Amino acid sequence: MRARHKPWADDYLKEQTTYVELNPPLYKGKWQSRFNENQPIHIEIGAGKGQFITGMAKQSPNVNFIAIEVVKSIIVSAVQKVVEQEPDNVKLINFDAKDLRDIFSENEVDCIYLNFSDPWPKNKHEKRRLTYAAFLEQYQHVLKPGGELVLKTDNKGLFEYSLVSFSKFGLVLDEVTLDLHALNESTNVMTEYEEKFAAKGQPIYRCRAKFPNE
Amino acid sequence: MRARHKPWADDYLKEQTTYVELNPPLYKGKWQSRFNENQPIHIEIGAGKGQFITGMAKQSPNVNFIAIEVVKSIIVSAVQKVVEQEPDNVKLINFDAKDLRDIFSENEVDCIYLNFSDPWPKNKHEKRRLTYAAFLEQYQHVLKPGGELVLKTDNKGLFEYSLVSFSKFGLVLDEVTLDLHALNESTNVMTEYEEKFAAKGQPIYRCRAKFPNE
Repeated sequence: MRARHKPWADDYLKEQTTYVELNPPLYKGKWQSRFNENQPIHIEIGAGKGQFITGMAKQSPNVNFIAIEVVKSIIVSAVQKVVEQEPDNVKLINFDAKDLRDIFSENEVDCIYLNFSDPWPKNKHEKRRLTYAAFLEQYQHVLKPGGELVLKTDNKGLFEYSLVSFSKFGLVLDEVTLDLHALNESTNVMTEYEEKFAAKGQPIYRCRAKFPNE
Repeated sequence: MRARHKPWADDYLKEQTTYVELNPPLYKGKWQSRFNENQPIHIEIGAGKGQFITGMAKQSPNVNFIAIEVVKSIIVSAVQKVVEQEPDNVKLINFDAKDLRDIFSENEVDCIYLNFSDPWPKNKHEKRRLTYAAFLEQYQHVLKPGGELVLKTDNKGLFEYSLVSFSKFGLVLDEVTLDLHALNESTNVMTEYEEKFAAKGQPIYRCRAKFPNE
């Protein structure tokens, strides 16, 4: 997602330490202490402007959500939403999720959401796709046994690739839907992208997968 | 596939014993002896009017093909095609493939094609879908280690279901494509159905999966 440069972003993030964790590696293994309630931790990688995470937080007060977004000028929009809504079960991290193991301990996370991740369509960029084996290895490490990976995308190529990548890694598919919005699921929280694509009538793909218990 | 009743079908099949095996359980474990050449055996379950199997036989002379179709008035069309083309690597069976183990031995088959199988969309009919676990168990038995299962369908529901069913059974997905014809694969042999659906612009789904080596 591209966004205008926001020169005030840095200062703004530094002011919102109730919701923004400025030094995420510090909380590795201790994320529960950042929340009021000790409850399952769900993370979104590439949280964009935060529509998904704030919607989910409202829908699932019994879950602690952590939104990760690398682009500063984008995450500030998510932070603004959170500051306005004041949920006590959302924290945000401006972090390049190259290795989740830098900021989460083994088994610390219950669910990972990948929403409309960059498809990196060229074969030579396969390793950058968030469903590439090396990323799955990280997810497996930080997820609890039986923890879930949920992928939503409008990108056919990324979806096809991810199903094969999951399967080869040993993940078990619990659900595959090739037209999420046809299900009319009242619990589906849309991202900003999803809303835009769905309005155009493009199908949204979703897959839920679990790592096998070791 | 529905077809007009063909009162002559019975007699016709009995005359074409070069291509039609009237007593398939007799050849369990001995299918190679029905062919001129000892080469990999690929089977199609629900071969319809035989366009796929005859096209494949032409394309892959180094493979022995066995077409299975339960509806007598339909398989006669496939037999007619074969009688006309005289391939020496195609045999046909008019058989209800409820249990492939009745007609194939362990490890006798190299590849199984499921083309545009009946989707049985109602949940209560799940057990009739050819990608239901009980069928996968049969396929695993008759397929060689490393043998392949190839599914083509235009039915979204069946495709979604099958990917999950394969995954839960432990199959590994080698390929998933959500729009087969967009690939412009010169080697793709179309079934009669596929030709019709593709002409309407409907996407054709394909998946290739392998049973893990035990």
